[in-house]
Amino acid sequence: MQAAATLNSTLYLSVDDLIRLVQRKGLSACIAGVAEGIEREFLRWEQFDKSPRLACHSDDGVIELMPIADAERFSFKYVNGHPANHRFGLPTVMAFGVLADVATGAPLLLAELTITTAIRTAAMSALAARRLARPGSRVMALIGNGAQAEFQAIAFRDLVGIDTLHLFDIDPQATAKLIANLTGSGLTLKTFASTFDAVQGADIVTTVTADKANATIVTPEMLRPGLHINGVGGDCPGKTELHRGVLEAARVFVEYEPQSRVEGDIQQMPAGFPVTEFWQVLAGRAEGRQSADQITVFDSVGFALEDFAALVFLHDSARQLGMGQAIDLVPQNEDPKNLFGLLGLNQPARVARIA
Amino acid sequence: MQAAATLNSTLYLSVDDLIRLVQRKGLSACIAGVAEGIEREFLRWEQFDKSPRLACHSDDGVIELMPIADAERFSFKYVNGHPANHRFGLPTVMAFGVLADVATGAPLLLAELTITTAIRTAAMSALAARRLARPGSRVMALIGNGAQAEFQAIAFRDLVGIDTLHLFDIDPQATAKLIANLTGSGLTLKTFASTFDAVQGADIVTTVTADKANATIVTPEMLRPGLHINGVGGDCPGKTELHRGVLEAARVFVEYEPQSRVEGDIQQMPAGFPVTEFWQVLAGRAEGRQSADQITVFDSVGFALEDFAALVFLHDSARQLGMGQAIDLVPQNEDPKNLFGLLGLNQPARVARIA
Repeated sequence: MQAAATLNSTLYLSVDDLIRLVQRKGLSACIAGVAEGIEREFLRWEQFDKSPRLACHSDDGVIELMPIADAERFSFKYVNGHPANHRFGLPTVMAFGVLADVATGAPLLLAELTITTAIRTAAMSALAARRLARPGSRVMALIGNGAQAEFQAIAFRDLVGIDTLHLFDIDPQATAKLIANLTGSGLTLKTFASTFDAVQGADIVTTVTADKANATIVTPEMLRPGLHINGVGGDCPGKTELHRGVLEAARVFVEYEPQSRVEGDIQQMPAGFPVTEFWQVLAGRAEGRQSADQITVFDSVGFALEDFAALVFLHDSARQLGMGQAIDLVPQNEDPKNLFGLLGLNQPARVARIA
Repeated sequence: MQAAATLNSTLYLSVDDLIRLVQRKGLSACIAGVAEGIEREFLRWEQFDKSPRLACHSDDGVIELMPIADAERFSFKYVNGHPANHRFGLPTVMAFGVLADVATGAPLLLAELTITTAIRTAAMSALAARRLARPGSRVMALIGNGAQAEFQAIAFRDLVGIDTLHLFDIDPQATAKLIANLTGSGLTLKTFASTFDAVQGADIVTTVTADKANATIVTPEMLRPGLHINGVGGDCPGKTELHRGVLEAARVFVEYEPQSRVEGDIQQMPAGFPVTEFWQVLAGRAEGRQSADQITVFDSVGFALEDFAALVFLHDSARQLGMGQAIDLVPQNEDPKNLFGLLGLNQPARVARIA
């Protein structure tokens, strides 16, 4: 039953495997590969069975499941968001996910998605900015210098052409960490004492803050004509980063409208507030930026299709590089109807009492 | 950071681990332990954040995610149902699941749930029959002798006192496999040529058939006063086992009404068709069987809380026996805000160009 065994073993990519995969391919190649994957999947948006993620909220944070499928593959991501996790020495966001075969239900890949989520979020942000920011954008304010910030920086350097970062975080140690990590990246790094100061002279503002609260990181007085705002951290009910006046002044793009209405910064706005799903811009069905002076907002919350694309990228890359480990997450038995027989329990081998 | 590492490693129980766990504890002890767990969790039903499972249907089958949580723990199960999977040498149903800490979102346990689902389904069925079947029930018709049948047989032997099985399956090889597996179990095994014949003289009828179709395995002319029907195989839209006349003649119990209205045999009935959630019987809030002559139906579809209980049982048992493997499904980094630093990329260690 080699065929069945091969068909039914699940490839496991641990955190260590993922780190080695990124080291071997290079972070830039990974971000570019995931961005290409997201673009490819977004262009066949209507082929996917989509739903808003399932969220389980508690006092400390949220745990979410994000499923999606097309006719061939199903994926889901498990992801949490717990702003106070650093107290336990744990990341704020931890994630893993599975890619499965729709025809049989067999899980093909189980992978860490904590690092991968940072990569795919950055890839998505940069993909959007490449279409929505003013051409020639070179300076990005990066507000929030935590776990995801470097990934955003590299993605915008590679895919958008950003060469200068204006940095601000309420925690100076976070900024110091980012500077240490991005030394040698070719990016010019400038630190500022406030968001207001950091935003001056920026072509793009990226917000990646983690407080679980309605915040107003970006306010209307910070706006300049032509600014593109990449709002990443406002991503669940009660957690926003943009003042509603910012949204009112801008053309706003989202990933998947039914989810963004609940989770995005637009949760502050009435149900009829106009937004454009970004896939429509990619597909040429809707306009992106309409003028050099227009303010654009990508109100990103993270959508399951981005994780689907990331899992496909990981699966392809791992198989190509021969990485990961085959695990028996589900049975590979010779007689699939004989689940009980798998247990190998010591039943006497005599004839049954058949009446 | 030993504390963080310990806090954040995930225990992995593979199919092989689960087989060894069942061998060491004994199948009867596992079924009894899971049944106790289900009873304990059902008695605090209102403390759980419940939702119907998320199902992704395709031509070949269904893939489902089944999440649930209380204030302390979150769990979900991934499970498929693909009736034609035997053609690929794969089980019809494959499953795995995760138990996580609500306070931090850290995944505590990743476990195979294919074998475990058979154990928990049998435990749930027997727990319900112990309350709903006539006292003194000894004979059970077992219609459908596939992957789950032996587990049902052992659970009903242990928890209900069944001593005789009336067997029928459209596939005689399935019945032969069951007989071979249950030889020495102490159960008297009788084979029959049809469901109708098998049901004669039975106190309980258990249906565990796998066809993805509206079927009428049990029809009104098979009914006798006092019969308890444990309907297990009718568990998704378009998949039923009981003729509607059977439901009309019976007092019907379900697990979680919002899910059962869509997935259970009661999907055939109008929205107002009366059903009782079984937890209410356990809690003394609703009557179970009201007379010796009443026909009772447990219209089981499988609910996330049963998997929650099974995962808690596995977690406790594995830790007690020192089984399973610690895996790095999520990062265990010393500085959780420095996700980028985990990658160990070769950035030159010189001072950044800070303006």
